Amino acid sequence: MTTEGKVNEDLLKERRKCTFDVEELTHFIDGGEQATKDRREVEEMVIYVKELKDEIPEEYLSHTGKYENAMKKSCVLIDLLKEHALKHSSFDAYRPTNMYRVQSLVPQQMPLLLHMGMFVPTIIGQGSPEQQAEWLPKALSMQIMGTYAQTELGHGTFLRGLETTATYDPATEEFVLHTPTLTAHKWWPGGLGQTANHCIVVAQLYTKGECYGVHPFIVQIRDSETHMPLPGIKVGEIGPKLGFQTANNGFLAFDHFRIPRENMLMKNAQVQKDGTYIKGKSEKLTYGTMMLIRVMIVTDMAYEVSRAATIAVRYSAVRHQSQPKPDQPEPQILDYVTQQHKLFIAIATSHAFRLAGNWLWNTYSQVTRDLDKGKLDHLPELHALSCCLKAVSSFDAGLIVERCRMACGGHGYMMSSNFPVIYGVVAAGITVEGEYTVLLLQTARYLIKAWEQAKEGKVMTPTVSYMVNFNNNRLKWSNTPEGIISGFQSVAAGKTKAAYEALQKYKRAGNDYEDSWNLASVQLTNASEAHCRAIICEVFWKEIQRMSPTQSPGLAKVLQQLAELYLVYWTLEKSGDLLEYSSISSSDLTALRQRYEELLALIRPNAVGLVDGFDIRDQVLNSTLGSYDGRVYERLMEEAMKSPLNQEPVNQSFHKYLKPFMQKSKL
Amino acid sequence: MTTEGKVNEDLLKERRKCTFDVEELTHFIDGGEQATKDRREVEEMVIYVKELKDEIPEEYLSHTGKYENAMKKSCVLIDLLKEHALKHSSFDAYRPTNMYRVQSLVPQQMPLLLHMGMFVPTIIGQGSPEQQAEWLPKALSMQIMGTYAQTELGHGTFLRGLETTATYDPATEEFVLHTPTLTAHKWWPGGLGQTANHCIVVAQLYTKGECYGVHPFIVQIRDSETHMPLPGIKVGEIGPKLGFQTANNGFLAFDHFRIPRENMLMKNAQVQKDGTYIKGKSEKLTYGTMMLIRVMIVTDMAYEVSRAATIAVRYSAVRHQSQPKPDQPEPQILDYVTQQHKLFIAIATSHAFRLAGNWLWNTYSQVTRDLDKGKLDHLPELHALSCCLKAVSSFDAGLIVERCRMACGGHGYMMSSNFPVIYGVVAAGITVEGEYTVLLLQTARYLIKAWEQAKEGKVMTPTVSYMVNFNNNRLKWSNTPEGIISGFQSVAAGKTKAAYEALQKYKRAGNDYEDSWNLASVQLTNASEAHCRAIICEVFWKEIQRMSPTQSPGLAKVLQQLAELYLVYWTLEKSGDLLEYSSISSSDLTALRQRYEELLALIRPNAVGLVDGFDIRDQVLNSTLGSYDGRVYERLMEEAMKSPLNQEPVNQSFHKYLKPFMQKSKL
Repeated sequence: MTTEGKVNEDLLKERRKCTFDVEELTHFIDGGEQATKDRREVEEMVIYVKELKDEIPEEYLSHTGKYENAMKKSCVLIDLLKEHALKHSSFDAYRPTNMYRVQSLVPQQMPLLLHMGMFVPTIIGQGSPEQQAEWLPKALSMQIMGTYAQTELGHGTFLRGLETTATYDPATEEFVLHTPTLTAHKWWPGGLGQTANHCIVVAQLYTKGECYGVHPFIVQIRDSETHMPLPGIKVGEIGPKLGFQTANNGFLAFDHFRIPRENMLMKNAQVQKDGTYIKGKSEKLTYGTMMLIRVMIVTDMAYEVSRAATIAVRYSAVRHQSQPKPDQPEPQILDYVTQQHKLFIAIATSHAFRLAGNWLWNTYSQVTRDLDKGKLDHLPELHALSCCLKAVSSFDAGLIVERCRMACGGHGYMMSSNFPVIYGVVAAGITVEGEYTVLLLQTARYLIKAWEQAKEGKVMTPTVSYMVNFNNNRLKWSNTPEGIISGFQSVAAGKTKAAYEALQKYKRAGNDYEDSWNLASVQLTNASEAHCRAIICEVFWKEIQRMSPTQSPGLAKVLQQLAELYLVYWTLEKSGDLLEYSSISSSDLTALRQRYEELLALIRPNAVGLVDGFDIRDQVLNSTLGSYDGRVYERLMEEAMKSPLNQEPVNQSFHKYLKPFMQKSKL
Repeated sequence: MTTEGKVNEDLLKERRKCTFDVEELTHFIDGGEQATKDRREVEEMVIYVKELKDEIPEEYLSHTGKYENAMKKSCVLIDLLKEHALKHSSFDAYRPTNMYRVQSLVPQQMPLLLHMGMFVPTIIGQGSPEQQAEWLPKALSMQIMGTYAQTELGHGTFLRGLETTATYDPATEEFVLHTPTLTAHKWWPGGLGQTANHCIVVAQLYTKGECYGVHPFIVQIRDSETHMPLPGIKVGEIGPKLGFQTANNGFLAFDHFRIPRENMLMKNAQVQKDGTYIKGKSEKLTYGTMMLIRVMIVTDMAYEVSRAATIAVRYSAVRHQSQPKPDQPEPQILDYVTQQHKLFIAIATSHAFRLAGNWLWNTYSQVTRDLDKGKLDHLPELHALSCCLKAVSSFDAGLIVERCRMACGGHGYMMSSNFPVIYGVVAAGITVEGEYTVLLLQTARYLIKAWEQAKEGKVMTPTVSYMVNFNNNRLKWSNTPEGIISGFQSVAAGKTKAAYEALQKYKRAGNDYEDSWNLASVQLTNASEAHCRAIICEVFWKEIQRMSPTQSPGLAKVLQQLAELYLVYWTLEKSGDLLEYSSISSSDLTALRQRYEELLALIRPNAVGLVDGFDIRDQVLNSTLGSYDGRVYERLMEEAMKSPLNQEPVNQSFHKYLKPFMQKSKL
C-alpha cells in the first residue's frame, strides 16, 4: 500500500464501507498468500531504484531520447533481476510470464523483451541438444542479445507466404540468406532496430533445388564489439507506433548473407552436410509456443483491464459532478448508475479473463503432458480454445479500456492518466500472435467439425458437448446463472448450425468449399465468438463456485455478485442472439434488467475495495487519476508542471513566429 | 487526384471496375460542383507550400519541438488564408467550419484554432455593440490572440459548479478575478498554454455581495510586447494527451487579478458602474453556439470516418494474404467477406453522418431564423436532436475508426498509417462539448416528456411522432427499408416506454424523481441511443431517395446499396431490441443475413471508387497505407528511413549501456 501524502476523504470513506478483506482478495488474485509475497518482493526491489525513475515523463522526450532512456532502464532492470534470481532460487527471472510482469513495473517497453520472450524459448524449443549447449549459455547470460524475425513487410498471418530464402550451398556448407523483394523485408520484431546483435530468422529453406518450406535459423546481424551491422545486412527500426514506443521494432534484409550450416535450428528437420533434407517430427508439436503465448495474452488482458478499472473507479470516487438536488452537494460520479454500468463490468471482466486464462493454462499443461506421451487427441480442442479466447479477450479488453478512459471524461484523455499507454498495449494484443478474425475462423473450423459430429450423434469433447444437448432441444431458459450459461451454449450451437447451413447453401449454389467458407465467414466468426462467450461465462461462474468454500463469506459473496453481473450483463448485450436461439422471453429480459440494476447497487459499496484488491502500486499504475491516495488534482497539476514548455515563461516560437505575425497584422 | 509515381496494379484494376462516375460522387459529397472546385482551390493553395511541409514527421520531435513546429506552420497557414480571403470575397476564412477543414490540411493541430473557433464567436455572440467595435478588429486582424476558458480542473459538465470568481469593486470600477482553489484552475483551453495573450474567462459574477452565476469576461493574460504572463496570472500547458498534441491546451489561475468593468461581455446581462446587476434576455438564446458546435461535430465525424475508410479500403485492395486455394495466388484481402463486413459499413456510416449532419444544420438554421422572430417552440426538439446525434456519431466514429485500423493488421498500428491521429481526433469528439452519457440523458428528458404526451394522445413534434404510432400498435415489421425504419422507431418508443415504466416503479418504491431518474438511467440512455438510430436511419434513407432523381443511375444505385446496407447492418446489430419491441421474426433475420451478404458482394466492385469519391488528397490523408497510388510498402519503408535512429548505424546507447552490460555478463 502506498502511504505518501494524505489520502482523499472520499476514498477513506469508501474503504471504511468495504464488506470484505481486501488482502484476501489480493491473495485470491495472485494465486495464494505466498504468490502475493513473492510479487511484492520483486516490486519492492525495483520501484525504489533511482536509475529506474524517469527524470521527466517519457512523452516529453524525442523519439531517440525515448529509446535511449528505455535502453538505460532495461540494462538496470535486468541486472537487478539477475541478482534477485541468484538470491532466490525459486524465482525464475527468465520465465516469460515473469518477464512480462516485471516489464510492467517500468513504464517503458523494453527493447530487450523479445530476447527472453522469443529468442531464448525458440533456441530451447527448436535447437538440437548441441545447439542448445552452444547458444543457451551465451543467450541466458546475455553476452549476446537476440530477437525473433518472422513477419515480413508483405506477409504476416500467412506463414507459407514468407519470401526470405535460405539456400544451402554444400560447397561451403553454408546457408545463403537473401531478401529478394521489398515485401520480403523482415518487419516488426521488437529490439531488432538498433538493439539485438543476433536474431532467429524464419526463412524458406532451399536445398538441392527444392523448397522445403519455412525453417528457423540463428543469425548474427551486428558485430559483437562495434555493434555495426555486418556486411550484407540492412537493419533499422520501423518508426513510431500507436503504442510500444520504445520496443525498437525493426526491419531486416539480407543480401546473400552466409551463415554456417549449423545455424539452422535442427531439433526437428535437418539439412545434412551434402544438402540432404531430413524431415522433422509432427509439425503439430511446434504449435506449442504459439499456443503458450496466446494463453499468456488472455491473462495479460485481464491484468490490463484491472489497471484501467483501478484508475477509473478510484477517479470516480474522488470526482464530484453536477447537482441533481439543489440542496445537496455534487455527488461522487461513482454514484451515477450509468458510471457503475461502465465500470463494474470492467472489474468483473478482469476476473473472468484471469480465471479463463488460468483454466486455459491448466488445460494447456495437461495437453502438453499428454503430448509428451504421444497423445495428440486434445490438441485441436486446445487450439480452438486458445484462438477464440485470445481473440475475444483482447477485443473486449480494448473496448473496456476505452470505456474506462471515456468514463473519466477529459482527464482520461491526458497521457498522465496512463489510459493511452494501456490502450496501446491492449490494442497490440488484438493483432499480434494471430489476428482477431483469423483466429475466430480457426475456431470456426473446429466448431463446424463438431457440429457435423453432433448431428451424427458422436461423442463430443467436453467444450462442445453442448451441441448434442442443443440438437436434442434439451436446453431450456431460466433466469439463473446455470440457465444463462446454457442459454449462451444454445446461442453458440444455434449460430454454428446457422453458419453450417449457410455453408451448405453456398455449396449447393455451386461454390467450392473455400468460396462457400468465405461467403459464410461473417456468420462463422459470430459462431466462434458465441462459443467463446459461453466458455468464459461457464468457466467464470464455475470457478467462482469452486473457490467459494475456501473463502471468507464476505469475499465469496462479492465475487459471486461480480460473476452474476457478468452473466446478466452479457445476457442483456446479447439479447438478440438469446431471443433467436434460446427460449428466453421478453419478460425474462425485463426481470434481468431489474436484477442488473440491483447488482450495480449491491456492488457499489465495495467498488473501491474491489480495485484495491488488484493491488497495483502507484508506481506500476503510473496514473494521475488512479493513485491509491486519490490526490487526483494535485497530481494532474504536478505532472503538468513537468512539461518543458512550462519551464520558461515565454517559448522562443513567440519571438520567431507569433510576434512578427501579429505585428504584420497591425499594418 | 495524385499522380506521383506508378499506381499499384490492383488499384488500377479496381478503378476500371467502378460502375459510377467518381467525380459525380465527389460533387454530391461536397454539395455541388462549385463547392468541390472551391475546396480544391484552397487545398492547392496550401499543400504545395514548402513551409507547411514537415522536414521530419512530427512523431520524432520532442514535445517542445512539436509545439514550435506547429506554431511556425500556424502562422504561415493563417497568412495564406488571409491572402486567399482577400482575393476571393466568397471565401470566409474565419468561418469556423472553414477553419476546421483548412486545419485538416496540415497534420498538426493549430495552437491558434480556438482564436477563430471560440474567442471571436464569443465576442460576436456575447459582446455589446461597443465591445464588438473595440475587440473585433483587433481579434480578426490577429493583433491579439485569444482563447476561451470555461472548464476547470475540477469542473467540466456542470457549468454552475465553476469556482473562478469575478467580484465587482465599485471603488475602482473593476472586476477582481480570482482562483480560490486548486480545482478552480482553468484547464483544457486550446492555445492557452504558451500561445494566447487574451482569453474569454467564464467566472461566477459577484456584485454587491450577491452571486449572479457564471458570466463571460475578456481578459488580457500576457504582455503584448514581451508575451510574459501579467502579474497575478499563472498560466502554462497541461501536458501531453492522447491526441491534439500541438493544441497547446493550458491551465490558468488568477491571484486577485483586476480587469476594467467594461471587460465583462455585456450583450445580455450587465453590471452598472455602481455595481447594480441587470439581468439579460432568455438564457435559451445562448444555447446557440453550443448547439452549433455539436452540429458541426456530427459532420466532422463523417469526415474522419471517410479518412479511415479511405485508408483501410485502399490498403485492403493492395494487400494480399493467405492462400485458400493451393493453385491460386494470395487474394486481395478486400475479397474476404469478413473484411468487407468491417469496411463497407464505414463507407456507409460516413454518408449517413454527413447527411444527418446536413439535415441537422438545416433544422438548426430554420430554428435560429424562428428564434430571431421570437419563436422558441422548436428549441427543445433541436436541443434533443443535437445532443444525441453528437453523442452517437462520435461514439460510433470511434468504434469505426478502430475497426478500420484493426482491419489493416499490424501496419494499421503504425503512426505512419495515420489511424492513431484520426482516432485521437474522434476520441476527443466523444468527450468535448458535452460528454456522451450526459448528452444522451439530455435527450432522454425530452423523450420521457414526449412519451407522456403520446400517452395523452397529444400532437407530437415530427421527430417523435412515431411514439403515437407505437402506442397505437400501428407499426408492423417488413424486410424493406421503410419496414426497418419503422422497426427502429418501435424500438425507440418501446425503450422509452420501458424506461418510463422503470422510472415510475422507482418512484412508487419511494424514491424522489432525481433518484428514480438515476436508477433508471441505463435504460434512459438506451432509449436515447435507439431514438438517435431511428433518426439517422430515416434521414439517411430519405435523403438518398430524395437526391436520387438528380443523379446518374450508376451513382444513385450504389448510394442506394450503401443506405440499404446501413439499415440491414443495424437491424442485425440490434436484433435483440427489434425482437423485443417490433414484430420482426427469426426468419426475417435469416433472410436479412442473406441480404447483407448479397449487399457486400454488390458493393465490392465499387469499394475503391467509393473511397476515391471522398476525394481526400494524399497530403491530407497523410497515410502510408491509404495513398491514391497504393505504393504501400514503398511508403512504409520510406517513412521508416526518416527515423533519426536510422540515420546512424549504431546508437550511442550501445556504448553507454548495452556493451558494458553484455561485457559484465561474460565475467
